Amino acid sequence: MDELEIDAVAEVELDDPVLVEGLPGVGHVGNLAVEHLLEELEGESTLVRRIYSREFPPQVSVEDGVSELTCAEIHAVDTAEGRDLLLLTGDHQAQSNAGHYVLTDAFLDIAEEFGASEVYALGGVPTGELIEEYAVVGAVNDDSLLDELEDAGVEFREDEPAGGIVGVSGLLLGLGERRGIEASCLMGETSGYLVDPKSARAVLEVLEEVLEFELDYESLDERADEMEEVIGKIQEMEQQQQMDVPTDDDLRYIG
Amino acid sequence: MDELEIDAVAEVELDDPVLVEGLPGVGHVGNLAVEHLLEELEGESTLVRRIYSREFPPQVSVEDGVSELTCAEIHAVDTAEGRDLLLLTGDHQAQSNAGHYVLTDAFLDIAEEFGASEVYALGGVPTGELIEEYAVVGAVNDDSLLDELEDAGVEFREDEPAGGIVGVSGLLLGLGERRGIEASCLMGETSGYLVDPKSARAVLEVLEEVLEFELDYESLDERADEMEEVIGKIQEMEQQQQMDVPTDDDLRYIG
Amino acid sequence: MDELEIDAVAEVELDDPVLVEGLPGVGHVGNLAVEHLLEELEGESTLVRRIYSREFPPQVSVEDGVSELTCAEIHAVDTAEGRDLLLLTGDHQAQSNAGHYVLTDAFLDIAEEFGASEVYALGGVPTGELIEEYAVVGAVNDDSLLDELEDAGVEFREDEPAGGIVGVSGLLLGLGERRGIEASCLMGETSGYLVDPKSARAVLEVLEEVLEFELDYESLDERADEMEEVIGKIQEMEQQQQMDVPTDDDLRYIG
Amino acid sequence: MDELEIDAVAEVELDDPVLVEGLPGVGHVGNLAVEHLLEELEGESTLVRRIYSREFPPQVSVEDGVSELTCAEIHAVDTAEGRDLLLLTGDHQAQSNAGHYVLTDAFLDIAEEFGASEVYALGGVPTGELIEEYAVVGAVNDDSLLDELEDAGVEFREDEPAGGIVGVSGLLLGLGERRGIEASCLMGETSGYLVDPKSARAVLEVLEEVLEFELDYESLDERADEMEEVIGKIQEMEQQQQMDVPTDDDLRYIG
Repeated sequence: MDELEIDAVAEVELDDPVLVEGLPGVGHVGNLAVEHLLEELEGESTLVRRIYSREFPPQVSVEDGVSELTCAEIHAVDTAEGRDLLLLTGDHQAQSNAGHYVLTDAFLDIAEEFGASEVYALGGVPTGELIEEYAVVGAVNDDSLLDELEDAGVEFREDEPAGGIVGVSGLLLGLGERRGIEASCLMGETSGYLVDPKSARAVLEVLEEVLEFELDYESLDERADEMEEVIGKIQEMEQQQQMDVPTDDDLRYIG
Repeated sequence: MDELEIDAVAEVELDDPVLVEGLPGVGHVGNLAVEHLLEELEGESTLVRRIYSREFPPQVSVEDGVSELTCAEIHAVDTAEGRDLLLLTGDHQAQSNAGHYVLTDAFLDIAEEFGASEVYALGGVPTGELIEEYAVVGAVNDDSLLDELEDAGVEFREDEPAGGIVGVSGLLLGLGERRGIEASCLMGETSGYLVDPKSARAVLEVLEEVLEFELDYESLDERADEMEEVIGKIQEMEQQQQMDVPTDDDLRYIG
Repeated sequence: MDELEIDAVAEVELDDPVLVEGLPGVGHVGNLAVEHLLEELEGESTLVRRIYSREFPPQVSVEDGVSELTCAEIHAVDTAEGRDLLLLTGDHQAQSNAGHYVLTDAFLDIAEEFGASEVYALGGVPTGELIEEYAVVGAVNDDSLLDELEDAGVEFREDEPAGGIVGVSGLLLGLGERRGIEASCLMGETSGYLVDPKSARAVLEVLEEVLEFELDYESLDERADEMEEVIGKIQEMEQQQQMDVPTDDDLRYIG
Repeated sequence: MDELEIDAVAEVELDDPVLVEGLPGVGHVGNLAVEHLLEELEGESTLVRRIYSREFPPQVSVEDGVSELTCAEIHAVDTAEGRDLLLLTGDHQAQSNAGHYVLTDAFLDIAEEFGASEVYALGGVPTGELIEEYAVVGAVNDDSLLDELEDAGVEFREDEPAGGIVGVSGLLLGLGERRGIEASCLMGETSGYLVDPKSARAVLEVLEEVLEFELDYESLDERADEMEEVIGKIQEMEQQQQMDVPTDDDLRYIG
């Protein structure tokens, strides 16, 4: 396994596509959002690239007894309505600092290969508490991108995100800027305690507007209802005892 | 010391051999199993390769005052009955993420050099508690491999192993698949607290069936009896006090 | 992103300049000091180099919604009075041991490119408690540099800094010496609890003398007054309860 | 700074020299021992090599205000009596696993360059408690080396050192064996709590015998007396209160 191995699984002609990134992060917001996009657009999407790397954790996932080596995937979506898309998903981020740079460069190379010059990195920004309203906080790599996103309801806040944006989402903006690629990061507010379908929906609603397509949210809403149930139980428990952050088991119930 | 240094200690002609991996892991199950195989098949086996690497911990083991540099070993077994074997053993895994990829590629290169196109990675899956029955949980890198293993009593469970398979065992499946090598991981259930000879036996009984040879288990059973004694003492102590996980000394008594 | 990417943003002719380093460290003393120099000398300074690297943390900072990829910057200052300067600033140090060597070599390469053969690395030395007097402790990479600094009030103490000087500041001395570059490290005493404008001022006063220019300290003094207020509040709180080290919020109030 | 930079400071003709390694480790035994050798043999020794590396911690030590970049040093000792020596000293070990391999290879390269084919790695083996008798435990990379060392009083114990030998000392044996270099590790028993001049002396007494020279121990004995004083105080304190492992300050008093 080299530093990078990119499998060209299929080729698809796209017209000025937009790369949308949804790797795991805070609240799994970006991950959930892009996986929902993939479900909804299944009929129009084709797996085009698998990216393997020494920088990914050395493991396989197992489903129904069959293994799959850690990788990131890019699906090309030749949409009937709205912008063409390149959807970037995966279960893991790089495991080293340099690894984040290596993988992000690979994702941008593939984006350029398909003629993309715009990127949306999707993620979450943790509030540290359960919330009712789900704002979407933004960051862009060029100030010409601010207006359109503000019109779509994205908030650009003076002190946020505190500490900047770490990992592939941040580097898509930073390295994208050096290649002349316009990149924006949309971060749904989320408690940070749970995999958050409401936050994912808030971010997708912004994307719907800027990329000019319409999505159905039924399956995401079902997950949101399950999440509300768990939150209810958690709040009951809270009233009974001092409570820690929910366990992985609770998280698995939601996600 | 380069990233990899492979000493060709001897050459042996094998007929369509199977690589069986037993590096250290949960409960030392794979390690015990393959070392038992090596003991039982001593007359028919030859050390063919030693693999050294910067990726191994920078240390020597010492036995009877004489040092040995950390390495993995491959023995070729030209068996009278059943499939020919390549047995992979060692005392340590790689110390970095990239290192696991580097070493697994080396092991697969050697396997291919000897004409192997099948791999069995042996390990343990922790139950977190002492158990009576010893099931063997499986994962394969191609679904065509499921039936034969199910017939041999291997269980393919929907949610297991949770978190996938990490390290060389997982990568033998993941990287093997990319080379067209059929690989299966057999994981004996084990508490995870002790070096577990009963779990190792359960895994070896599956191998006996699929690789068509017969093994004697006397020495493993002796170790199992010693383990039962220690478990007995531990349970006594438990009744006397809150007990932590057994110490390294207890583990050394068994293994 | 390669191990190093250096953007030549502009070219400036300097006359025997001095490199002054102010990357983050103890009490952010060096960082504050050089940022103050940059503010005061704004009219005479030009950004000449940006240094990007896989060795920097994989993140972007965000200001007013616009991202900036982690980098170090070098400004050339063609001063009317006193020595010409190359001012090195940044928000992060390298994230690995080897990374510190890589980045320091890059900084020295750029310094040599501009004809510099002298370096001042600015930093802090922690006292572990709030102090009244602000001494400047020194280290040099050649004993011929001791006298002039002693004349400027720098203290060379037998057991300090305990543990030597770690990171870019130390390596500017160590690697500089191997290139025949004269380098001195000026470390302002500081509690280590707060971003310390008084310590930064003590260090700048030494620089004023050796580099023959005059600085205004009004803005630094304002920050010092703010710091005194916070210290006052902290001491009040101390009298009320056992107090931990100030939180990031308190630090942000100062810095 | 490359992975390795070796400064050839001087050249000395040696006759079948022995490399003696004393880098920092348990109880600083090896370090103390070789530094004592260097002091005692000062008139006959010449600094021949300095080894710098990205693998060393990125720092300078400071003495009397003057910095020195982290390095290892090799002194050639053209002795009047006994074997010629190459003395390897330094204040730090490598900071990564691969780094240990890189540096040990460099040390062996230099040893071969000077015609050495024998190595003594000096260190300590921790007993975990203060001791009265100071045995020297040994390990060799070839069993032909056992007898001579046993005759010199070295003990080869069945279960020691538990966990093998980690770091440069271990790799000198492991990598030395692959180059046909005979290497032995002499480990003085020590509590592990203090820099231990008595343990260093025990190890040097073995070396005196095998390398056929005589050493004066006055300065080491002075340090041993200081250590006895501190141990006395520690035992007093013990009787007064529950005591933790001595602080760095106590260690600095000794060392």
